Amino acid sequence: MRISELSRRSGVPTATIKYYLREGLLPPGRPTAATQAEYDEHHVRRLRLIRALIGVRGLSVSAARNVLDAMSEGETDTHSMLGLVFGLSTSAKPGEEPGEPESCAPGDSEAGALLTEMGWSTTEHNPARHVIDETLQTLRSLGVDYDWRSLVPYARLAEQTAALDLDQLQAPLDPIEKAERAVLLTFLLEPALLALRRLAQEAESQARYGT
Amino acid sequence: MRISELSRRSGVPTATIKYYLREGLLPPGRPTAATQAEYDEHHVRRLRLIRALIGVRGLSVSAARNVLDAMSEGETDTHSMLGLVFGLSTSAKPGEEPGEPESCAPGDSEAGALLTEMGWSTTEHNPARHVIDETLQTLRSLGVDYDWRSLVPYARLAEQTAALDLDQLQAPLDPIEKAERAVLLTFLLEPALLALRRLAQEAESQARYGT
Repeated sequence: MRISELSRRSGVPTATIKYYLREGLLPPGRPTAATQAEYDEHHVRRLRLIRALIGVRGLSVSAARNVLDAMSEGETDTHSMLGLVFGLSTSAKPGEEPGEPESCAPGDSEAGALLTEMGWSTTEHNPARHVIDETLQTLRSLGVDYDWRSLVPYARLAEQTAALDLDQLQAPLDPIEKAERAVLLTFLLEPALLALRRLAQEAESQARYGT
Repeated sequence: MRISELSRRSGVPTATIKYYLREGLLPPGRPTAATQAEYDEHHVRRLRLIRALIGVRGLSVSAARNVLDAMSEGETDTHSMLGLVFGLSTSAKPGEEPGEPESCAPGDSEAGALLTEMGWSTTEHNPARHVIDETLQTLRSLGVDYDWRSLVPYARLAEQTAALDLDQLQAPLDPIEKAERAVLLTFLLEPALLALRRLAQEAESQARYGT
């Protein structure tokens, strides 16, 4: 299909599609003339995913590109592919690549101590480790008596959440489909999981203190 | 203390403090001269909280003001106060007030169906309901076969997370301290909870598929 048809099918304006092509978020079509290219269903699906990451999840163009790059690395080993997706930072800067996976050296940070306690094997480069450390530091600077031990009960619930996530990737999917599903469940469910917590907090507060 | 001392104590530049005063995020000090005011420990603590919401959590100034306003409404009834905090949208626009709490009218949305299934009593205005509906619509538009029933197992875990949250507000705190603690645990823990999920996903993937 031409770019105009791709625009109609995906609901994304032509100018925006051209921008995504320039930025490398969308792979180029098959050239049919000096200024024309042919696009296919793969492009329609990719455009919807880009719109979900940028429009719904609020990712920057460079963060969205990191996610899409990880999906396209053609990893056929499920764990390596999932590691790429789960280890992605949504705030990664352009050109900032995740390092080589190294074995976890626990104990060098509060996140490390928590990982050891939980028996979790993760890579050093997972940016989630820094988020844990930063959050604990911020809470303490505000006078909340919190350390990694305070997060252990939350970590046990996160473990059950992750098991639910992984269960949904058990279906017989090809590696690219599995990567796409992992991206969708990891990134797009995040706002919904936080929303569920807010609703549950309100319900729990009503149950404990309501009249 | 003078504004210069407040700046030194909080680590926030004087110009930024003046901006927060103009925007109403920080209550004015006690005037001591035409161009001078006296600040106290309350201002130091409030400034640290503002920096945590804006700097760490990335909230806009208007979203941070909504959070701080909710804290300051002087609700002494714990449930009403917590309802204000938990029902806050971090993306609320300036001047956009949460409506009057109404009883939930379930079934009019997917979130409503989920709330009924869970037996959760929440207010209509809780913006988290829209987040649930939007997420489900987006996932379906991307070809993921998901409806509110798919979220029930996640909602059960959210219920346990909320119970952990509320347990930490049981301590004998005055209403303002309780509101501040609720804000800290609700907003500042959000990135850490998502980070725990990412780490748990990686560990679970390693356990299932790793070599």
